[in-house]
Amino acid sequence: MIGSLLREPILRKMTVFLQLIGGFENGHRVNKMAPRCFLGRIPRKTATENGRPMEDLCWTTTNAWKFPGGLSEPGEDIGNTAVREVFEETGIKSEFKALLSIRQQHRHPGAFGKSDLYIICRLEPSSFSINFCQQECLRCEWMDLTELAKTKEATPITSNVAKLLLYGYREGFDKIDITMREFPAVYTGLFYKLYHRQLPENYRNTINLQ
Amino acid sequence: MIGSLLREPILRKMTVFLQLIGGFENGHRVNKMAPRCFLGRIPRKTATENGRPMEDLCWTTTNAWKFPGGLSEPGEDIGNTAVREVFEETGIKSEFKALLSIRQQHRHPGAFGKSDLYIICRLEPSSFSINFCQQECLRCEWMDLTELAKTKEATPITSNVAKLLLYGYREGFDKIDITMREFPAVYTGLFYKLYHRQLPENYRNTINLQ
Repeated sequence: MIGSLLREPILRKMTVFLQLIGGFENGHRVNKMAPRCFLGRIPRKTATENGRPMEDLCWTTTNAWKFPGGLSEPGEDIGNTAVREVFEETGIKSEFKALLSIRQQHRHPGAFGKSDLYIICRLEPSSFSINFCQQECLRCEWMDLTELAKTKEATPITSNVAKLLLYGYREGFDKIDITMREFPAVYTGLFYKLYHRQLPENYRNTINLQ
Repeated sequence: MIGSLLREPILRKMTVFLQLIGGFENGHRVNKMAPRCFLGRIPRKTATENGRPMEDLCWTTTNAWKFPGGLSEPGEDIGNTAVREVFEETGIKSEFKALLSIRQQHRHPGAFGKSDLYIICRLEPSSFSINFCQQECLRCEWMDLTELAKTKEATPITSNVAKLLLYGYREGFDKIDITMREFPAVYTGLFYKLYHRQLPENYRNTINLQ
């Protein structure tokens, strides 16, 4: 175990929302293979029924629907990566709300020979018009969430996250959200972000615990 | 964004349960700095009241309570790291049940110059007698969860996770668990593990979605 502490980094992190599939050649992205991409929007009628904002973005590569995503910058927070990548790929401005899902995959192509951790976030958009990256996708538009959950033109992870979003959208995002809090670290001047299920008020204060 | 896909790995992963603090010198673990460690157990009376198994392990370094944990082996699943590290450090056999929390910290000492992702799991023990690693800790024992949540001799992350566990223990672990499912990847022969909040049965089947 002591040995294990000295081992080299074995995982890279890849964010957010969903994995980029296809479009690689010898580990490099190739423009001519730029996939067809779609970005979907919940119909306004559905979106306003529950009084919740429209906030579920998705698109696709190689004829399979997918969410926008990409790699973190060094030292970048997960949520900031998500917001940045969504803006770079779609032109949509958004705010981080919560983590939704984590995928661990070993021997992932294009993962620099490391195992891959892919983190899916829920964002709330503050702008809706699309101005997408034409090097990465041929098409990009808002899509109905129920349709995305049902279509066969999506990777399993896209379908699963679409179903999870649909569940949260209909019954409350508190059912699916993994929320964030920031704490000072034991090392002076540093902070860390801790993500877990929201803790009820009566469990937060030590005084209330019996 | 295309450039971002070619970037080097920027994060390492560190697992499970809680961060090892102290005991480092120039990035190497030093035996003479081996901290006092404790491992706590929920009192049998409390544990059997709700008919749930006793399953919350914790210990401490440098006079602060902490959970067992360590680095993943290359290609190792998160849950397997947790089970292995708990066994190596405490002699306790256990089974992975769910993810509980993720911490992201930048400029973490001993993180090989990368940002650090630390993942906290919930395990269910199948053995209870302790045979702990004497190179890493001076003491190791089961501890009452309420006491751990209240004590000041714990790092903030330990206290927070203890409160989270107490919430789950009293009101059902389904309130806090981030459960796992395995899927075939788009790359032939590979599988990935996907962690998210449990999806109700009526959302899993596409036929039921309207």
